[in-house]
Amino acid sequence: MELSKIKSPADIRTMSIDELKELCDQLRKAFLIKISNHGGHVGPNLGLVEATVALHYVFNTPQDKIVYDVSHQTYIHKMLTGRMGAFLDPAKYDEVTGYTNPNESEYDLFTIGHTSTAVSLAGGIAKGRDLLGEKYNVVALVGDGSLSGGEAFEGLDEGATLNSNFIVVVNDNNMSIAENHGGLYDNLAKLRATDGRAEDNYFRTLGYDYIYVGDGNDVEALVEAFRKVKDTNHPVVVHIHTDKGHGYKPAEEHKEAFHYSGPFDLETGKPKSEDNSESYDDIFAQEMLAEMKADPKVCVLTAGTPGVLAFGPERRKEAGRQFIDVGIAEQEAAAMASGIAKAGGRPCFGVVSSFIQRAYDQLSQDISINKTPVVLNIFYGTVLGMTDVTHLGWFDIALISNIPGWVFLAPTNVEEYLSMQRWAMAQTEYPVAIRIPGGEVRHAEGSVQTDWSDLNKFSIERKGSEVAIIGAGTFLPLALQTADLLEKNGIKATVINPRYLSGLDSEMLEKLNNDHRLVITVEDGVLDGGFGEKVAHYYGTSDMKVANYGLTKKFADRYNYQQILTDNRLTAPQIAEDVLKLFK
Amino acid sequence: MELSKIKSPADIRTMSIDELKELCDQLRKAFLIKISNHGGHVGPNLGLVEATVALHYVFNTPQDKIVYDVSHQTYIHKMLTGRMGAFLDPAKYDEVTGYTNPNESEYDLFTIGHTSTAVSLAGGIAKGRDLLGEKYNVVALVGDGSLSGGEAFEGLDEGATLNSNFIVVVNDNNMSIAENHGGLYDNLAKLRATDGRAEDNYFRTLGYDYIYVGDGNDVEALVEAFRKVKDTNHPVVVHIHTDKGHGYKPAEEHKEAFHYSGPFDLETGKPKSEDNSESYDDIFAQEMLAEMKADPKVCVLTAGTPGVLAFGPERRKEAGRQFIDVGIAEQEAAAMASGIAKAGGRPCFGVVSSFIQRAYDQLSQDISINKTPVVLNIFYGTVLGMTDVTHLGWFDIALISNIPGWVFLAPTNVEEYLSMQRWAMAQTEYPVAIRIPGGEVRHAEGSVQTDWSDLNKFSIERKGSEVAIIGAGTFLPLALQTADLLEKNGIKATVINPRYLSGLDSEMLEKLNNDHRLVITVEDGVLDGGFGEKVAHYYGTSDMKVANYGLTKKFADRYNYQQILTDNRLTAPQIAEDVLKLFK
Repeated sequence: MELSKIKSPADIRTMSIDELKELCDQLRKAFLIKISNHGGHVGPNLGLVEATVALHYVFNTPQDKIVYDVSHQTYIHKMLTGRMGAFLDPAKYDEVTGYTNPNESEYDLFTIGHTSTAVSLAGGIAKGRDLLGEKYNVVALVGDGSLSGGEAFEGLDEGATLNSNFIVVVNDNNMSIAENHGGLYDNLAKLRATDGRAEDNYFRTLGYDYIYVGDGNDVEALVEAFRKVKDTNHPVVVHIHTDKGHGYKPAEEHKEAFHYSGPFDLETGKPKSEDNSESYDDIFAQEMLAEMKADPKVCVLTAGTPGVLAFGPERRKEAGRQFIDVGIAEQEAAAMASGIAKAGGRPCFGVVSSFIQRAYDQLSQDISINKTPVVLNIFYGTVLGMTDVTHLGWFDIALISNIPGWVFLAPTNVEEYLSMQRWAMAQTEYPVAIRIPGGEVRHAEGSVQTDWSDLNKFSIERKGSEVAIIGAGTFLPLALQTADLLEKNGIKATVINPRYLSGLDSEMLEKLNNDHRLVITVEDGVLDGGFGEKVAHYYGTSDMKVANYGLTKKFADRYNYQQILTDNRLTAPQIAEDVLKLFK
Repeated sequence: MELSKIKSPADIRTMSIDELKELCDQLRKAFLIKISNHGGHVGPNLGLVEATVALHYVFNTPQDKIVYDVSHQTYIHKMLTGRMGAFLDPAKYDEVTGYTNPNESEYDLFTIGHTSTAVSLAGGIAKGRDLLGEKYNVVALVGDGSLSGGEAFEGLDEGATLNSNFIVVVNDNNMSIAENHGGLYDNLAKLRATDGRAEDNYFRTLGYDYIYVGDGNDVEALVEAFRKVKDTNHPVVVHIHTDKGHGYKPAEEHKEAFHYSGPFDLETGKPKSEDNSESYDDIFAQEMLAEMKADPKVCVLTAGTPGVLAFGPERRKEAGRQFIDVGIAEQEAAAMASGIAKAGGRPCFGVVSSFIQRAYDQLSQDISINKTPVVLNIFYGTVLGMTDVTHLGWFDIALISNIPGWVFLAPTNVEEYLSMQRWAMAQTEYPVAIRIPGGEVRHAEGSVQTDWSDLNKFSIERKGSEVAIIGAGTFLPLALQTADLLEKNGIKATVINPRYLSGLDSEMLEKLNNDHRLVITVEDGVLDGGFGEKVAHYYGTSDMKVANYGLTKKFADRYNYQQILTDNRLTAPQIAEDVLKLFK
């Protein structure tokens, strides 16, 4: 069957097993052509071709509901559910997002980008179905490292108590983004080694019925297994052993590199372009490797994303036991870091802005209330970072700066970052978070201070009068550009680098009252709960005017950098225009 | 031995087993005298008398480290570690907090009030110990329902990979605060029924060595078990089956009521005073029971704290399957609610302010991005609520109001609350959070609107000029009192009930510019990231002056209501004084 003729899963349900096998080959080939030209999640989808086909073959979607965990594994699902064009026609490549999306299709239940959520969400659907007295199958497809997340455990634990149809398919490819971590994965290994018959079985201990499929890339075996559990009246786990990157040699051999890839040469697997420009992840990794070598008490933690920290396999080996990957488990990384600091170690947890949301309570209870000197490095905390709605780096300022006790630093260039990081790792007074700037990597022009213990001291980058522009982190250059424009209009503005996001320099702000009438704040995040509002609050009862620039509180998906900056008046000409209007 | 002579655990380590038994009796009696007069956590501590004695007898504390989960079970620990006076001498009763506290003793590693954190924290200590090349035992004591929390799973999963000394004592008393929930607890039941020999063993599946103690209130058996695992070179679980409330009949028979109790008559177990005054938990429970009866799609979720929602055993029975207790697992409750809403159910998750912090990511990703109409009721979100540093209800405004998509309502009296709750449950457009007010329960004077779909419309309670006071939620009465005082000084202030915390009524704020010079905001939470800062931001470039009242961003512990209000100038005379000063 021509792929383009597949409009919905109904079109494959009449096929024979041999036709399904042929279909899987076709899907895999078409997927590889798009992905090698366009980039995206490679290995997770290659491993799931057969399972996706078998699920839609056996279950009566969309009446039956499938919830995909960390839904970057749903490209094949999209191909089968009315979106084939976005995979076959280069002009339509960008018509689909990289995750499930209810706006695209009724086959997509949720927009899911963070891991470990599917079992809870699907359990809720099953519970809702039962309350409404309806009948359909509810399937959660998890895997790809999601099981280490606490929400996945909570979902499994509660889901086990449903006295009704509930099917959890565990896609076990023996790795997360990088290696799997945690005792649970040894249990999965035992189950694989014994064809599912090992004495201790994680899923059975939680109360699930259990079926094992040794070759999760055998569509016939999968169809058989799914038929067995279809219309079950109780919770059951189908544990399928798949091969990440299956059917494409370079991805089978280099599983970590092919978890996600930019465009690559299909024949060799080599990236079409290599980015060798200076980057903060690399600067972080070099710095922390040096610190770890100099001091055995120093360690780096990641929650399943070592690549974000530029700790590839070689550097992980070099760091040895001082590099700790807890798997996708941000709560554990944060709390464990607190314990390490309590015992006298010096932990640095490097984490993506969007994922630190998963450890709010740990930042507050396990760390701040206990004053443990944990160091946090926030990656991609910028509008100039990831643009998927589930991965926005806009909220960490409001999240961290409003928890008492944290020192939250916003470096603006490499030297400032390194100075702050070294100070943070050396001191033992405070938990310190450092927000790695977005945009172009910049360097300091002069020397940078080394001691940051005199908290909340802002720095005047350029002294003027009438207008002061406070440009935090990423947006200090924007503040400087705005000042340049204003200067052309006869206003010599003061430009301030606040450096601290967790408190105000009231002494400096007070002095501005003498010869300034307007303070502008520019921050790389959502205005609500952010830095600028604190400045507005500070000047509330004075004559000083305050204008805050940042992002409006709403979600965006796959946005264009320039567009979103313009929409939020986060460009120098727009801010300068506003200032001139206010001064008329 | 006289209890008063026990200054540290060293004083008990020379005792014989018979002397230990006698000691346990003495400790239990002394504990009961204090707790019946003073109130506190009863059952959890009674169940742990023998285990606590055995731990300090066998392990060389404080060199060996014990981390207690949800540390309200550490009263006996405090008695043995230099704080006996606070249990024997009524004048000293309040010298200790209800939780472990490093400021009190070197035997207390962390301040811990939220559950499910100890394994992660202890795992971190073990990891830090190994990095530093030191040698000592690290023990995590968990239980009392903590195992259902995702952080506990993450901690167990990662802790299993420590190739060194790591001991997890699981205090299994067959219940959480109320019943235990989740498939895991069936596994514990099987282990209890088989003297630890059941085929599937949750802890073994995660990679732990395992020892079972059938009578966790037999100090001799406990000493023997702890001696076996002392100085172990690998992770091991000691599963002890204790009896919540052990040794005090009323607490053994009424385990849920005696989890925590105010002062009670030691002979009968009857509370010394009963509070029959009107309360929001009861109003909530009555309302939701009625809604559930009228509509099978409606359900109420709790994460292990049905008592907070006034859903005692009888009401839970009445609600049947429409009342869902997921155990202590806030992530699951939030995400499951999203799934239920997606399937057409109408879920209301009732949760304590301090605990909703554990589900930030779920409020954002699982609910808001997916626009599922989940209803959240926030209990104890007030400075006039719980005063322990680990349970402060001050942060939920900054947490929820800054997540896009949530409608966050702040009722000021019973009728307004009920109207908002009914609207929230009936509509399906938004996720809606409702912040139940603190302080005295009040009633509406006039009629209350029933439709809240015209978002962010503030209400003018009293029309004046010059000064407008916006009093949110709990603090509307404070705004009115302030206006009364101002009126005596010749200023007739406008008083506004904002009703919405998640957005501003820009139309009304704009109009205030006509005949007002000053806007005051008063909110029941921390200023940073809160409601008032948004108003200050709004007026930043206008001539309007803004003064924000709320709590300063810092932690407090066991504070006095009046004191903290005065310290933050949250009293009518203070605010009126400030206004008059500004108007001089």
